[in-house]
Formats: sequence, structure tokens, C-alpha cells
Amino acid sequence: MNMNAKVKMQGPLVAIGGAEDKASEAQILRHVVSLSGKEAPIVGVITTASSIPEDVYAAYEDAFRLFGADEVLDVRIRDRKDAEADEFVAMIRRSDIVFLSGGDQMRLTNVLGASAALDAIRERRASGAVIAGTSAGAACQSRTMVYGGSPDDSLRKGAVKMTAGFGFVEDVIIDTHFLERGRFSRLMEVGTTNPEYLGVGLGENAGVHFDGNIMRALGPGHVILVDSSDIGGSNVFELHDGEPVAVSNVKMHALVNGYGFDMGTRRVLGPDELEALALEHSIAYS
Amino acid sequence: MNMNAKVKMQGPLVAIGGAEDKASEAQILRHVVSLSGKEAPIVGVITTASSIPEDVYAAYEDAFRLFGADEVLDVRIRDRKDAEADEFVAMIRRSDIVFLSGGDQMRLTNVLGASAALDAIRERRASGAVIAGTSAGAACQSRTMVYGGSPDDSLRKGAVKMTAGFGFVEDVIIDTHFLERGRFSRLMEVGTTNPEYLGVGLGENAGVHFDGNIMRALGPGHVILVDSSDIGGSNVFELHDGEPVAVSNVKMHALVNGYGFDMGTRRVLGPDELEALALEHSIAYS
Repeated sequence: MNMNAKVKMQGPLVAIGGAEDKASEAQILRHVVSLSGKEAPIVGVITTASSIPEDVYAAYEDAFRLFGADEVLDVRIRDRKDAEADEFVAMIRRSDIVFLSGGDQMRLTNVLGASAALDAIRERRASGAVIAGTSAGAACQSRTMVYGGSPDDSLRKGAVKMTAGFGFVEDVIIDTHFLERGRFSRLMEVGTTNPEYLGVGLGENAGVHFDGNIMRALGPGHVILVDSSDIGGSNVFELHDGEPVAVSNVKMHALVNGYGFDMGTRRVLGPDELEALALEHSIAYS
Repeated sequence: MNMNAKVKMQGPLVAIGGAEDKASEAQILRHVVSLSGKEAPIVGVITTASSIPEDVYAAYEDAFRLFGADEVLDVRIRDRKDAEADEFVAMIRRSDIVFLSGGDQMRLTNVLGASAALDAIRERRASGAVIAGTSAGAACQSRTMVYGGSPDDSLRKGAVKMTAGFGFVEDVIIDTHFLERGRFSRLMEVGTTNPEYLGVGLGENAGVHFDGNIMRALGPGHVILVDSSDIGGSNVFELHDGEPVAVSNVKMHALVNGYGFDMGTRRVLGPDELEALALEHSIAYS
């Protein structure tokens, strides 16, 4: 129970694969709102990753208002100076939900890394607020962040570009637009270079809720997990950059809404197990 | 040894993922030529799948001549009448290598299915000739043939279109342009509907040589194997068409040139094992 107790100290974290539905049927964004536990939460939308922040903010403002937000805040941080500005830090501190838009994840880490704004996001998370992000705003959540890799064949030495992300969640590497842009080979390369990390490939209009050790799939799309912990030998150390990597026994799982994954035991949880777990959880904390 | 003896009665079969190099460095096409065991083989090029047979034939004529072919035959079968024509059947019967070009695999099965030309190809294979094909010409080689599926997310009930192929190789389903068009979800869907079949996902400029129970990877690209034989439960029977499929424990292997796979034991063979096997084989038949 200790582990669960520790987890309880962090608010819910949601990562979305991009292109999520923002209209009335939007399963994922509605779920994000519900996770705040408030009837009419305040949502801070951070559009730093985007090159068209005005349009992106407007779309999320409409969506979150539709789903019951009391206020939607335009946290338009464009540069490192903005990321220190009291005005924006105050907005983040008022938010029950901090939402990171899509765009370029490198912009996000470059502008927000080691800033007062990022400190404020971490404080909000520690106080139980919801942190959610889509596309770049999802990729940045892992400790190691993928930001590039050939759309053709990324299972080549050095083909996947990685740098440090925000580390809102440990032990995983998140990739987005995963099925739509055929990024399976990216997470296979990542897993071969370090089998310790679980690859989380988020399809469009799909998301995961990180709930302690449990990952819950959300939305109409797919979440593909790439588990390299049992891989056999590989040629990866013998290769020059760009040469094709051989690897065996990469395990993949495809989760859909209602399914989950136990990151501790690396096991897929079906809808029944997931419901039983939720019940157990609610009894433990009632 | 009996099994190998039976296999010996069939000529080599090569499936290529498309877009293979045809210039001087062309590893795969050179290998196809060498498999004929002849210094200067006769190559019959069947362009039935293509909508631009003239251009396609010209490219292969140049390539095969460069790699030492004595004659390259333009087996330009365009319709079912052509597929019965003595002229074309005679060309196939003279070929040491029968090469099936890319294009539309449905055209290939529709025009050649149950024809004198296809009988002639099978006879050539039984007599030890090389049968090789790229893209559509590779996809058609399996007993069940994939011919369509959403480029976005094919892991949805009914999303992958399949029909009967020529069955030059049993127990596998071949897909092509696999990494470049992100087709992983197609073979995951196929494997979930029937875990018995091994998915063979051929990248561009990559191929496999089916040598009895052993599959040998060729070329600079990747061969991805999708082994669904150990999958856990799935929701697939409960779904309506188009709904997302959940599946766990799909095993994937990435082979590169020099690596192989034992289809009997479903095990990846590294370069050392593959060489040892070749030696054993040559001793047994010397």
C-alpha cells in the first residue's frame, strides 16, 4: 500500500497521441476534465510548442468550455523570458488542469526547461492537479524524449533523435502519431539501445492516463506498448551510424479504451481486471 | 533429412519488399541471379501487376543484363487470354528465373489465377528454377494475400483486406513496403485473426529467400517478423467492423542481411548459426 500512497501524492498525468477529437464526442478531453474531480475546473492551456498559438488556444478554449471548464487560461509562453513571468506562473498556479498543446517538443523543452513556469507545473502536479498534453505535449512527459527519426525506417543505429524530457513519468518513452506515421521502428530502435524503457506508442485520438504503476488506455485509437525487456542478441554495438539494427523478441501489446497495463509486472490488464483494481483502490482510500 | 529432401525438390523462392536497388550495387537482384546456379541465366520478367509494363520491363532488362543474364524475356501478360497464350507459356518454360514485378497484386491473382502461365511457373519451381517477386510480386506468394488496409490504423476489425494468393510458400503472410508505409498494424490485425500465420513484413530494398524451413534476410533493408503464436486474449470477436482491436504479447523480430529464421522452431538465427547450417546442408548434399 505504501507504493500506492506515494503515487497518491501526484496528480493524474495524461498523454495523448495527437489529433484528438475536440467536438462533443471527445472521449479523451472529457476524461481529462473529469480527472480534475471538479464540476467546473480552471484549465491553463500552454501553447509554447505550437507555431500558431492563437488558433490552437482558441480550439482548446472552445473544447474545454464545452466540457464544463469554469475558466480557460491562455498561458501563451513564447520564450524563456515569458517562462519566468509572474503573470504566466500565476496562471499555472490557478489551474486545476494544465494542458500542453502539440507542436515541436524541442521548443517546449528549450523554452520551459529549468524555468519558473516548469517549477509551477511540477508544484501543481504534486498538489494533485491534472497535467495533460497532446503530441509534443505528450512526448515531453517522459524522462527521455524522442524528437525525431526517419519516417521510413528508424531501426538504424542513431536514427532516432532523443534528448531529455520533463520526466513527469519515469521508465517509459512516449511517442505519438504512432500508427498513423508508422513509428513502430522508432520505439524498436529505442528499446534495443536500452531495453529498460517501456515504449509507449500513442495513436492519434488515443491517450493514456498514468495512474501510479497502472497505465489506462483512453479514446477511440490505439496505444501500442513496445516491451524490449526480453530481447535477444542484437548487432547494435557492431554497427556504424545508419546501418540496420537486428533485434529479436520484441514484445508488443495493443491497448484500447478500457484496457490497462501494470508497469510494475509488465502485464496487460483486461477490462475486468482493471475494474477490479479500481474497486480495490477505492476501498483502500475510502 | 527427409524434410530437407522434400524441400530440395522446389527451387529457391525470393520475396522482395519493393523499391529494390537495380543499379550496380544491387545486393538482392544479384543474389537472385546467383541462386539460379547459372553463370548466364535466362530471366523471364512478368509485368502483369504493373500499369506501366513497358517502363518496368525496361528497368529489369537493364538490371538483369548487368548482373549477367544471357537473355531477358518480356513476358507481357496483360489479361487472362494472354495467360493462356503458348508464346508466354513457352517463355516461362525457358526461364531459369521467373521474376514478378510490382504493381497491383489483385491484378496478378485475377489475371494469372488458374491459368496455363501459373501452371508453368509452378512447374518451373518444381524443376528447381528461381521464382522471385517484388512488392505485389512478393505479396502474391503467400497462400493468403494481403491487398489493402488503412495506412493509418489497420488494427481494426475487418480493416485488412485479404484474399487467396498463389501459395508458393505456406504458413506465412507477406506484406511489403512494410516500414516505409508503417504497416505494422496490418500484420498485427492479421495475426490476431489467425495466430497460426507468421507475418513477414518486408521493408523496401529488403527481401527474404525461402529455403525450406529457413528464411534468409537479404539486402540493406529490414525484414520484420510478426509472430502472434503466443498472443493473449483479444476483444476481436466482440467487435463490430472498424472497432479497434486489443491484443497482447505479439512478438516481433527485425532481421537484416545475414540473419535468418527457422520457421519450424520459430527462432531467429544469427549469422554464425546460419553459416553453420549452410555448412551442414552442403555436407548432407555433397
